[in-house]
Amino acid sequence: MTENKTYIVRVPATTANIGSGFDTLGMSLGLYNVVQFVPAEGTPLVETKIEAEGEGAGQITEGLDNMIIKAMDETAREAGKSIPGGKMYLINRIPFARGLGSSSAAIASGVFLANMLMGEPFNRKEILDITAAMEGHPDNAAPAILGGFCMALLKDGNVTAERIDIPSHWKAVVTIPDFELHTEKARAVLPDSYPRSDAVHNIGAVSFLMAAFMYQKPEYLKLGLDDVIHVPYRLNLIPGASDVIRNAERAGAYGATISGSGPTIIAFAPADRAEKVGIAMVNGFAAAHITSRYLVLDFDHNGIMAV
Amino acid sequence: MTENKTYIVRVPATTANIGSGFDTLGMSLGLYNVVQFVPAEGTPLVETKIEAEGEGAGQITEGLDNMIIKAMDETAREAGKSIPGGKMYLINRIPFARGLGSSSAAIASGVFLANMLMGEPFNRKEILDITAAMEGHPDNAAPAILGGFCMALLKDGNVTAERIDIPSHWKAVVTIPDFELHTEKARAVLPDSYPRSDAVHNIGAVSFLMAAFMYQKPEYLKLGLDDVIHVPYRLNLIPGASDVIRNAERAGAYGATISGSGPTIIAFAPADRAEKVGIAMVNGFAAAHITSRYLVLDFDHNGIMAV
Repeated sequence: MTENKTYIVRVPATTANIGSGFDTLGMSLGLYNVVQFVPAEGTPLVETKIEAEGEGAGQITEGLDNMIIKAMDETAREAGKSIPGGKMYLINRIPFARGLGSSSAAIASGVFLANMLMGEPFNRKEILDITAAMEGHPDNAAPAILGGFCMALLKDGNVTAERIDIPSHWKAVVTIPDFELHTEKARAVLPDSYPRSDAVHNIGAVSFLMAAFMYQKPEYLKLGLDDVIHVPYRLNLIPGASDVIRNAERAGAYGATISGSGPTIIAFAPADRAEKVGIAMVNGFAAAHITSRYLVLDFDHNGIMAV
Repeated sequence: MTENKTYIVRVPATTANIGSGFDTLGMSLGLYNVVQFVPAEGTPLVETKIEAEGEGAGQITEGLDNMIIKAMDETAREAGKSIPGGKMYLINRIPFARGLGSSSAAIASGVFLANMLMGEPFNRKEILDITAAMEGHPDNAAPAILGGFCMALLKDGNVTAERIDIPSHWKAVVTIPDFELHTEKARAVLPDSYPRSDAVHNIGAVSFLMAAFMYQKPEYLKLGLDDVIHVPYRLNLIPGASDVIRNAERAGAYGATISGSGPTIIAFAPADRAEKVGIAMVNGFAAAHITSRYLVLDFDHNGIMAV
């Protein structure tokens, strides 16, 4: 490790669940956080100085309270090595606690950065295993690291993941309301058990969701997004969400649902209707007296990368 | 309609559920029933004389107790037409009540035959709708009519179905024990509700099952067949079934599970290991004092057809 060398990592936002694919499916979005790090030999990792611009720049924590530092620390332990601290500069574009994978992005960038600093002892699959184990579930971690549309299962600390390319003429319209919703709260509203018909419903829906992406058949998206395991319960936590989804579909989206555990709503739309869809979604939130903004995003095909 | 014209319909066996795809997925197998029919103007449909060879030839019912006749009758009503009876000859190769879609095959052939007799008022999609409505679920009906690997949902009498080609170098090894298991009994052992973790498990598994078939990745089959919604409950109704599945996998199958609601066990295997897999499966049943036989089958790509 040379002093004054700058390491730069770019990590995408992600949307998990995708309707019926609860806790399994995720996609990588063209919205990126950037982490710049200049190591200083002799400085303990936990004493790294962090500055930030963008989303949540005023609320950055340091030491092991910072998810990036914590992920770096755990990754170094995993490799049985130690890494120095230094100066870190964050360009944060992924909103916090909005259902766009900011937590996975932070963990993934810490794991990836630590791996770079140690001379890459871990391959991409191992980076995914470490990230998913820290996060507790793999549906944001897999697309953050692999890019594209991912299905992922975590079992005994090992992630099985498959990646599919996303049709390049589809756009993601993410409409982000002006309040946070933490995953723990969004998980607490879910029932502990479901009737058999609900399980069967989602098995069918996720089959069509897979077909929609694998065969690029947008006509199956609405069927594939039609979830009964988490969406109906979480809609109650997001004022206006049902109207936002309906507005998106009326404005020409292929389909829309909650991004991750919310409160962001994501619509899939052809490029030429994306702006109209975004405006209709913002109007849906406005009718419920919620301020929001929309972004028209491409899908990301690379996952996390060194810049 | 001309007297003495012979109508011949060939309909495939099907395997439904396919592990995690409970009530949604099905595949068409290269094992066929053949229905031959010679209409006789003036003979009421319910007075059709039926002869049969093969499976259950001694137990054939006539009139509306016969599923083919009943399906013909309902299809004629649906079209607002009437069709004559005549002479019917059945070549039955699909075993009854073994989880190989004999009931869907009977209904589908009746609907298809009636449609031919009426000059084809219904297209294939409508034939599927009528068949699935009579059967109550679409997971055998869709592959029986469309061929291939199908996902299908039935909602308000309308079937949405998508069909995928099955890798041509894969074989189905179906091992049929010497006892019947009726779907109603196999359904009665299922719980009414499931913990959230079970629903999530199957959502993940079915995603990988789809990838296994769509991308022809046999390494995902075992993960994709790993169901917790119906298989563990139904295994108890089939003596030796767990050993049969284990034996199939040890003999080189990509994976194995219950066919439909059982008692047949189906394994997916490469052609060069199929016979070995079949023998191992029969041995598994034998260890539980159950007589069985195995068939190495190709997959069917055509679905029901006029011959």
